[in-house]
Amino acid sequence: MTIKLHCFGESGNAYKAALALELSGLDWEPVYVDFFGGQARSPEYRELNVMGEAPVMEDGDLRLTQSGVIQQYITDKSGKFGGAPQDKYEVLRWVLWDNHKLSSQAGVTRFLMNFLPEEKRPQEVIGFLQGRLKAAYQTLDTHLEGRDWIVGDGMTNADLSCCGYLFYPEPFGFDRKDWTNIDRWLSNIENTPGWKHPYDLMPGNPSDRA
Amino acid sequence: MTIKLHCFGESGNAYKAALALELSGLDWEPVYVDFFGGQARSPEYRELNVMGEAPVMEDGDLRLTQSGVIQQYITDKSGKFGGAPQDKYEVLRWVLWDNHKLSSQAGVTRFLMNFLPEEKRPQEVIGFLQGRLKAAYQTLDTHLEGRDWIVGDGMTNADLSCCGYLFYPEPFGFDRKDWTNIDRWLSNIENTPGWKHPYDLMPGNPSDRA
Repeated sequence: MTIKLHCFGESGNAYKAALALELSGLDWEPVYVDFFGGQARSPEYRELNVMGEAPVMEDGDLRLTQSGVIQQYITDKSGKFGGAPQDKYEVLRWVLWDNHKLSSQAGVTRFLMNFLPEEKRPQEVIGFLQGRLKAAYQTLDTHLEGRDWIVGDGMTNADLSCCGYLFYPEPFGFDRKDWTNIDRWLSNIENTPGWKHPYDLMPGNPSDRA
Repeated sequence: MTIKLHCFGESGNAYKAALALELSGLDWEPVYVDFFGGQARSPEYRELNVMGEAPVMEDGDLRLTQSGVIQQYITDKSGKFGGAPQDKYEVLRWVLWDNHKLSSQAGVTRFLMNFLPEEKRPQEVIGFLQGRLKAAYQTLDTHLEGRDWIVGDGMTNADLSCCGYLFYPEPFGFDRKDWTNIDRWLSNIENTPGWKHPYDLMPGNPSDRA
């Protein structure tokens, strides 16, 4: 049974699940969600996911949403990315921190700065979110000092979660050159065999709408 | 060994952990964090938690942060609030959604509207966050239609997470009377034996600084 992931290239949250699937070796395929065409706000999509969000994963009759849940399922099924048994709380800690402080705010900021018409971009909001994001980059960079991975000695869901928005080319106030430890850690991820950029892993990218 | 929870009354994120501890029957005590006095930004506190956040839980030599992680630990230790085995992904799904869309934004909005000096309150940001929160309340209210609890037949970490900011009296754009299903669900939580309001469960509240 091929796992289906409802996703689109621009979504860093979908990327977190797609990259975990791709690197796990499980059999999967993307199903394109036309987010910018409003598909995620349709009644049919709300039926699929009351949260109105991508990604949604389907494995036979099982349907899961929230990238962190899909990652946990991939770990349960493939045995990968869960970290050492004693690190399970530390992996979950960074997944939750990412959802709370990093990907959530990076996703919104990137949307406001790139996918809204220029005259509709709320500059005070963008500045506010960029300030909060800077504090998040600082936290992650400090934690990565002397470490190759966020938890333990290899890639875990903590890495697959926190990197969600950090490979995208559209500006949102993040420049990896400003953060030595984050930059090195992102290179470790990129150099992992099988790694793919979000726009190479999932259908849909800004040039489709240009 | 008494579990220590570093927390303060105004923090809905700390409340999520404190309420789980209180209702679990585990032996615990709060340790006051003077957040508004800047303690969480001090080097000593950053040593305790690089994320600079409350809550922090200590159980002997084990130290955990992120309310969702502490909740998972309480579930592992007490056997409570994890839901039925087949519901584990659904419980985690709502904990992650709460971190991403509900508590994170409610906490910031309440802070901006109540704990910043009036002349420093960024009105465009507040309006933007309130709009996003309204979508979150709608998602939760829709999900709770016909349900007493977010997942399954009893209280789980999904409930203990999503309610984090919803009992506070300070205005942030949420009025439970506007959301029939959320209102009924919050009453179910309040009517649970042992339930306490955040300001009765943890030290520190706005009147201390009045």
